[in-house]
Amino acid sequence: MRPYLKDPQAIYAESFQTVRAEARLERFQEDMRPLITRVIHACGMIEVADRLVWSEGAYQAGHEALMSGASILCDCEMVGAGIIRRYLPAGNQVIVTLNEAGVPALAKEIGNTRSAAAVDLWGAHLDGAVVAIGNAPTALFRLLERIEAGAPKPAVILGFPVGFVGAAESKAELAANPRGCEFVALRGRRGGSAIASAAVNALAVGTPEGQDK
Amino acid sequence: MRPYLKDPQAIYAESFQTVRAEARLERFQEDMRPLITRVIHACGMIEVADRLVWSEGAYQAGHEALMSGASILCDCEMVGAGIIRRYLPAGNQVIVTLNEAGVPALAKEIGNTRSAAAVDLWGAHLDGAVVAIGNAPTALFRLLERIEAGAPKPAVILGFPVGFVGAAESKAELAANPRGCEFVALRGRRGGSAIASAAVNALAVGTPEGQDK
Repeated sequence: MRPYLKDPQAIYAESFQTVRAEARLERFQEDMRPLITRVIHACGMIEVADRLVWSEGAYQAGHEALMSGASILCDCEMVGAGIIRRYLPAGNQVIVTLNEAGVPALAKEIGNTRSAAAVDLWGAHLDGAVVAIGNAPTALFRLLERIEAGAPKPAVILGFPVGFVGAAESKAELAANPRGCEFVALRGRRGGSAIASAAVNALAVGTPEGQDK
Repeated sequence: MRPYLKDPQAIYAESFQTVRAEARLERFQEDMRPLITRVIHACGMIEVADRLVWSEGAYQAGHEALMSGASILCDCEMVGAGIIRRYLPAGNQVIVTLNEAGVPALAKEIGNTRSAAAVDLWGAHLDGAVVAIGNAPTALFRLLERIEAGAPKPAVILGFPVGFVGAAESKAELAANPRGCEFVALRGRRGGSAIASAAVNALAVGTPEGQDK
């Protein structure tokens, strides 16, 4: 069998050297570079750098929220599973309501998906939270709908729903930002839970230290 | 705010219509089409259809293993979190050893990553299992190394590690297949836990029923 690199520090160094060599990061403000670097690392695609959009204060707001112990609200279990707990010294709660017992009935009642109904259960946690959406466009649409209706604003919305129906549209709505929220999003169809978790991890500690693989 | 599609069945129908309209699925054998369809759906990228490789008996071996209750071995928690348990009537165990207490010490001992060391803890579960790798190239390399050294073969290896160091190489090694394993893999840097979970879900039940978002 072919030889392969086994030292986590060497893998880390080579990975990030590749990102720096191939990606165009000049247009990113300084504090966003670790985030885009982690996002690229999570999906293996250099070219997503060209589709990332964000509000100017997103990193600062997200980092401060995490450091002060804000809740992290995720649209699915996979996003929660990718958040590295040792990066969160304040012991932030990671909350996923998608599989709570009342969700299917609530989805029927509001005429929307289970993912959207799960957003309605975020309740008081929403105020000042870090929201990470890595699966369902309807969760992101529902969140924006609720903020428009007067729900409290999270500290930052990390918008990475994925797919062919509503993903590009919900992220365009987030990025148009008539509600004045802090946000990060990847335009278009691409996204996913690994990217959403990577964004949370980047807001917490910047780039990885080579212990992840 | 712009209107959006809220009915899960309609979202499902439109998503899969898009995949069928845009993807080139002619080269896929019949029983692999639900798997590639789910993989495309999981990552929002039609073009991954052109990079999927598989052994002829992969679907059959994987499906039968899942239906008969085989263990599902994953390289990280995110892959485990994406496996939809209601698709598994045999109540298969989903096993992730990455965060077991002995892993860091074992990694040092074998001079490899934690992800590789975790593979060494799969032990007796490996025989006839469904292996789903969605993060670490070193986990896939280590598995192949162990099989070469005489470890029992899993029923099927779903190889979707991601990234810039070893991902393409480990999947090329898997696909060259001197060990005669059943496998599915995505050539190149792209991969990830959502794709790996989607492949497991496809082996269990084919395409989704629209309840997923």
